[in-house]
Amino acid sequence: MSKGIPSATVSRLVTYLRVLSDLDKAGLTRTSSDHLAAEAQVTAFQVRKDLAYFGSFGTRGSGYSVPGLLLELRRILGLIRPWRVAIVGMGRLGQALADFPQLDEYDFELVAAFDVDPVKIGTTLGGVDVHHSDDLPTVAADKSVDIAFLTVPVDAAQAAADDIVRSGIRGILNFVPTVVSTPDDVRVETVDFLAALKRLSYYLHGQVPAKPDELLIGGSR
Amino acid sequence: MSKGIPSATVSRLVTYLRVLSDLDKAGLTRTSSDHLAAEAQVTAFQVRKDLAYFGSFGTRGSGYSVPGLLLELRRILGLIRPWRVAIVGMGRLGQALADFPQLDEYDFELVAAFDVDPVKIGTTLGGVDVHHSDDLPTVAADKSVDIAFLTVPVDAAQAAADDIVRSGIRGILNFVPTVVSTPDDVRVETVDFLAALKRLSYYLHGQVPAKPDELLIGGSR
Repeated sequence: MSKGIPSATVSRLVTYLRVLSDLDKAGLTRTSSDHLAAEAQVTAFQVRKDLAYFGSFGTRGSGYSVPGLLLELRRILGLIRPWRVAIVGMGRLGQALADFPQLDEYDFELVAAFDVDPVKIGTTLGGVDVHHSDDLPTVAADKSVDIAFLTVPVDAAQAAADDIVRSGIRGILNFVPTVVSTPDDVRVETVDFLAALKRLSYYLHGQVPAKPDELLIGGSR
Repeated sequence: MSKGIPSATVSRLVTYLRVLSDLDKAGLTRTSSDHLAAEAQVTAFQVRKDLAYFGSFGTRGSGYSVPGLLLELRRILGLIRPWRVAIVGMGRLGQALADFPQLDEYDFELVAAFDVDPVKIGTTLGGVDVHHSDDLPTVAADKSVDIAFLTVPVDAAQAAADDIVRSGIRGILNFVPTVVSTPDDVRVETVDFLAALKRLSYYLHGQVPAKPDELLIGGSR
């Protein structure tokens, strides 16, 4: 199903889902590609093109049913079953994620946590039992873990990713600011706050009047 | 400087910077748009088009100087001065960010933290003093804060964003899974791990053989 769909389209579908969810919560039942486009900061043509990969939605002139398109997007994105999540690395970030209130709301179910710290192993943090990382394969199988949140220190990331892969888990949400290698059948999505921080730098920098030599960076080469 | 540059280009520049930084650390001095494209998962044409917004880099046939292009990208992205950061909300996530070792490396300097918890106020967490959130305007001015990390609970996010704006801070890195409104001259970048999680769901879902009716979602409408 993911063959040939640009990753940027997938990202935008997630944004459309968020917009539709907000409209739905506000009690609105109809929307348009113009409205979705404005909220997602893209063109209406882009919205229609993105949706067209998956079929024909809505009616020309009368737009989209909010609950209808919401359901279709949830199905396209696979958000129609509870994905079972384990957190690998129960430092502050892992614990913050375990406490995150909206995981359930979005059909992600936290079922296990892992660490190497003997003080944490055997305890319950954020409502889940913390196991030794060595027990990942058995616990992952027992609990049918689909997705691992990777929240270990940088220098432990690749080894932990290897353990996750060996445990049969096919999705990794990587919070560690490093690239981890996995086989082709294991999908890694990265949450890179440093990248967001650098985008912010670009926009703040742009607010400062640029000096003439900055405007000509490389221009005279 | 940011006028007319697509936000997707800005995101890709950040990716190219990361790739160049890795090449530089590995001691390589030359690269090509083909290599940058492969690492960033885009086309070489896209790389050249993105860079062309900012001038003429590299030499046809001999590619780019790694340290040269690295420096140019740092200048374009405004990563040529230490941005002064404050963390607003010192819960687990705020504390995890305060402890994050790579902030300094990337020219972001953590200068203050804020919370409303009397137990935390007056203490030092992650190497910075925690102030009462009411003192944001005075401390932000004293410490010349450029960027605020917003890490408060969801229901406190908009009020905290308003305080940040009133304190003269022009950049917000929003870790709260909600949209905050700010004036046009305050830039908000969002770190949305739930969006990354939903993208992951899409790709995992795609690995499961789809049922015929799922392949036809909306197609017969």
